[in-house]
Amino acid sequence: MINKLVEKIQKTNAPIVVGLDPMLSYVPEHIKEKAFKEFGETLAGAGEAIWQFNKAIIDSTYDLIPAVKPQIAMYEQFGIEGLKAYEKTVNYCKEKDLVVIADVKRGDIGSTSAAYATGHLGKVQVGSQMFAGFNADFATVNPYLGSDGIKPFLDVCKEENKGIFILVKTSNPSSGEFQDRLIDGKPLYEHVAEKVASWGEEVMGDAYSYVGAVVGATYPEMGAALRKVMPKAYILVPGYGAQGGKGKDLVHFFNEDGLGAIVNSSRGIIAAYKQEAYARFGAENFADASRQAVVDMVDDIATALGRK
Amino acid sequence: MINKLVEKIQKTNAPIVVGLDPMLSYVPEHIKEKAFKEFGETLAGAGEAIWQFNKAIIDSTYDLIPAVKPQIAMYEQFGIEGLKAYEKTVNYCKEKDLVVIADVKRGDIGSTSAAYATGHLGKVQVGSQMFAGFNADFATVNPYLGSDGIKPFLDVCKEENKGIFILVKTSNPSSGEFQDRLIDGKPLYEHVAEKVASWGEEVMGDAYSYVGAVVGATYPEMGAALRKVMPKAYILVPGYGAQGGKGKDLVHFFNEDGLGAIVNSSRGIIAAYKQEAYARFGAENFADASRQAVVDMVDDIATALGRK
Repeated sequence: MINKLVEKIQKTNAPIVVGLDPMLSYVPEHIKEKAFKEFGETLAGAGEAIWQFNKAIIDSTYDLIPAVKPQIAMYEQFGIEGLKAYEKTVNYCKEKDLVVIADVKRGDIGSTSAAYATGHLGKVQVGSQMFAGFNADFATVNPYLGSDGIKPFLDVCKEENKGIFILVKTSNPSSGEFQDRLIDGKPLYEHVAEKVASWGEEVMGDAYSYVGAVVGATYPEMGAALRKVMPKAYILVPGYGAQGGKGKDLVHFFNEDGLGAIVNSSRGIIAAYKQEAYARFGAENFADASRQAVVDMVDDIATALGRK
Repeated sequence: MINKLVEKIQKTNAPIVVGLDPMLSYVPEHIKEKAFKEFGETLAGAGEAIWQFNKAIIDSTYDLIPAVKPQIAMYEQFGIEGLKAYEKTVNYCKEKDLVVIADVKRGDIGSTSAAYATGHLGKVQVGSQMFAGFNADFATVNPYLGSDGIKPFLDVCKEENKGIFILVKTSNPSSGEFQDRLIDGKPLYEHVAEKVASWGEEVMGDAYSYVGAVVGATYPEMGAALRKVMPKAYILVPGYGAQGGKGKDLVHFFNEDGLGAIVNSSRGIIAAYKQEAYARFGAENFADASRQAVVDMVDDIATALGRK
């Protein structure tokens, strides 16, 4: 699946991923009204509204992008009905041949970690049958519990030809509270990165490993250092756009082959119509605004990478 | 909710929590057969089987115990149908007046962390209505992302009178890879514990904070040290029983008031009928075996605490 991700990035010339993190407040009134008319102001109504919102954005952008990253928390907040919208979104993106990165940040140990890996990337046995629960291509994973949390994911990745991105240095202001603390003269995130590199050796694709890393765009110098620590790990870079990361900050996350990083934008794309720059589209044409925001983001990154 | 937890522990005289982490392999054949007959060998069939398994164990133990801890991964592996069984389990335990600790180990930042807190402990707004997604009393939370990940949970805890347990030192063998590394002469887990104590000051119940900690029974010396670092934090102790922790290991997790810790057992209770010690019950009477295992666990801990 890492090979497919690389191929799709090369084909689209767009090292970006659209974060499908819908808040109800992003969903235009006309979509909410229709959903509430059919299902009432209920959890099912909310699920329908975010699914229709997602579907329109996917339809409007799928030919430009290699991948999407649904943030499961945004669905989980609506309980079962929200998770049904998550499931529909994942399946629809796969129909459109998009690589789906499930931003689930799961992390547990042993059989529990194996259950998460199975649920999000693998297949579960029921009697004599096998079923996929939520059938994503990649999942994000939290490293705090150590190898016992990661190994079960590696097993499923090998079996299913899928991948993970392990949290190394997150994009948020307080990420340094623990991640930046020095251990033997090196920050914790660098120790985690070394582990990512070594876990990744077990599951190599053609040029990159099935095991990638999450490093926030808001910390470009750290990105540069971490790029060298994990040369074969694809870096998933959140924090571009709404969180403050700019195109020029991204340069050092990439390898010299122009590959090795994929930059996420969520709000900046899916709620583009709410920004001044795209207000001309209006709420009715929110999906066109998202398409234009994708074009502009690809352009911003290409300029920064000196490819224009 | 921490006050309710303490009261229920005092009333039952049982500082334990039953981990509802059903694997299909734990579910006796007669329950699986019935579920598969009704729903087929499908995800819905699996969900029905684990729900019926849980229900029987809850019915058989609820009067002896203060709390349960469903591990959501075990449900998530079956996708939506598994999560429906999770939802039913949570709701049924609440009907039985059990305190429900959702073992979700979620951890994200800002609005995403808020969405998890809302989904598992709070209420979400849909139009003019408010709904609970998964309505647990406590949730477990991963600290790797720092305060940005914890604060949104604290907000929901204040509003809803609920609580969290933050991972400090997990019970697994490789937990030391990152958690034990020395930072300024102290292990990372102790730095996390100091934060737990300070986050907890904001949301105090009568004697204990709404913010507790997870510390594995498999590391008793660390439990003793951490007990002092976080005097007002309830400690949720996994790793008893199947993972190797014994009653005597638990003494130092408790405060002198005999409170301050709640010990989890999952497999040791819910799959008791598969152990030699309880084989006499047979698969048909698995729930009675679970009840006996609860009685024995309470006894083991009481003996260790010198209260018998």
